[in-house]
Amino acid sequence: MRPISRRECMNLDLDGLRQAKTPLEFLRDAKPIIDSALSTAIARLPTWAAAEQIPSIIRYATFAGDGGKRIRPALTLLTARCCGTPLEDVIDCAAAIELIHTYTLIIDDIQDGDEIRRGEPTTHIKFGLNLSLLAANVLLIEATSLLQEKLRIPAFLLREILHKLHAGQEADIESANWPLSKRTQDSLEFVFSGKTGALFGLSCVSGLGAQDHGEETLMDLINIGSEMGILFQAADDLLEAIGDSNQTGKPVGKDRAQKLTFMSFFANPNDARDEIQRRKGVLAMKIRARLPGEGADFLIEFLEALVDRSK
Amino acid sequence: MRPISRRECMNLDLDGLRQAKTPLEFLRDAKPIIDSALSTAIARLPTWAAAEQIPSIIRYATFAGDGGKRIRPALTLLTARCCGTPLEDVIDCAAAIELIHTYTLIIDDIQDGDEIRRGEPTTHIKFGLNLSLLAANVLLIEATSLLQEKLRIPAFLLREILHKLHAGQEADIESANWPLSKRTQDSLEFVFSGKTGALFGLSCVSGLGAQDHGEETLMDLINIGSEMGILFQAADDLLEAIGDSNQTGKPVGKDRAQKLTFMSFFANPNDARDEIQRRKGVLAMKIRARLPGEGADFLIEFLEALVDRSK
Repeated sequence: MRPISRRECMNLDLDGLRQAKTPLEFLRDAKPIIDSALSTAIARLPTWAAAEQIPSIIRYATFAGDGGKRIRPALTLLTARCCGTPLEDVIDCAAAIELIHTYTLIIDDIQDGDEIRRGEPTTHIKFGLNLSLLAANVLLIEATSLLQEKLRIPAFLLREILHKLHAGQEADIESANWPLSKRTQDSLEFVFSGKTGALFGLSCVSGLGAQDHGEETLMDLINIGSEMGILFQAADDLLEAIGDSNQTGKPVGKDRAQKLTFMSFFANPNDARDEIQRRKGVLAMKIRARLPGEGADFLIEFLEALVDRSK
Repeated sequence: MRPISRRECMNLDLDGLRQAKTPLEFLRDAKPIIDSALSTAIARLPTWAAAEQIPSIIRYATFAGDGGKRIRPALTLLTARCCGTPLEDVIDCAAAIELIHTYTLIIDDIQDGDEIRRGEPTTHIKFGLNLSLLAANVLLIEATSLLQEKLRIPAFLLREILHKLHAGQEADIESANWPLSKRTQDSLEFVFSGKTGALFGLSCVSGLGAQDHGEETLMDLINIGSEMGILFQAADDLLEAIGDSNQTGKPVGKDRAQKLTFMSFFANPNDARDEIQRRKGVLAMKIRARLPGEGADFLIEFLEALVDRSK
């Protein structure tokens, strides 16, 4: 029996993606395709005999603990399907976005001193700070290079998104020390829109592919993705608050006085849930205004799966 | 008396640069111009009310202790003068290259645990690891974005240069633990060509500006700059070895058994000096083969100033 070529294999998989009926089916079918594109991207990194560890470290950071759900690159593929962009055209972009996400995870774990991620030692625990920093920065270089090669998103937009991502990280780090006057919902919105929204926005707009769309369309897709990221993060805070309450019996948020979370602005989880639902409804209308009918429906279902998840 | 506009000021300064008679005069006159371009570049960084520290940290990292000699951006300006590129066209690139250099210094100091640079606290000592990492990464993003906007160096070459820079860093970190079989002159050459040569190569080729030169010309300028960087680094090792010997009276290199340096391969400083001079002569011939007569002479004088320096 002759082996199936990579091209055929990809075609088969992509057909599955085009036919997936629910967002969860889509996520499940997208993961092996994304993982394969990630492997290809990592294999493209230059190697030298005297410096061969960086690609292995990147591979570890990307695949340890089964690599997570790949939500951001799946959003790229899903947006592509919803907009009618050939999936083949955006797979490398999707991989590049996950590489940026991996970069942020390495840096996050260093900053937070976290030792475990996805059930495995974090990258800096496994390989030490010095090599992990190099690996993170090589990820950033390779991912932006890939995005610029494959995507025709204007350079100034990519620059703005990456800067915003880092500004969100800065605000997140500093928020624990903010005075009361700065602990506002606007500030938290900024943190979310930077640390989560920026990359979700890039994921979404990347689904348009390299064809020439007007700047207005690009901005709309960035904003849709960004709001999706903000709600994803808000749902995270809500789930964590509920989890805390269930598991510890302590009043919700009691031992988190310092950290600013979505829950800081609501008297109880129900109020927070209502606000998330309200914003989800507004976002759904924005999606319908921008995308064709069936595409809009499927993207909204994906949004619901992200926001209404129970874990 | 009306104030002099920035434009006039730049023009005056650039005339000085065009007329500087010696490389040291050129370096001296280039520094305030480069510093002004760096200030402009840093002022262009986006800021947000909730995250305003990154630009200040970048400014500190760039200007603390008077900011150093700015050799790399000066090489860009000097190559531009030697090739007949209008200096105005490459000033922003020169600044971007110094921003990449600043990025490597922040990361280097973290990796080496250094607490003082240019007589001032290193960035991570002054601002902490977490914010310094963000500042370093924002530098990388902004610098590559500036280079792509202003320079028409093909994306694949920029990618290759940045990857090589990081591979050199990796090899430098690991070289202390290399087995004897790996402690070869080739390996050291790789470290030098990565951690110093890559950015010198980019500095040199950036002097061509954004006009369309063939790939052969680009590669030649990259190689000339890279070899210049390697000799700059070799001269550094030689000076350090001589300095050690003078200051401590210990046999040269005695307490540096672990670290691989240029001196590791020579019985005494004179042999090392001869080898540097030999390579300098070969490089001078390459420069003459590529650049117009007067330009070649001036670039070779700059090379001599870098390599034959006594401190």
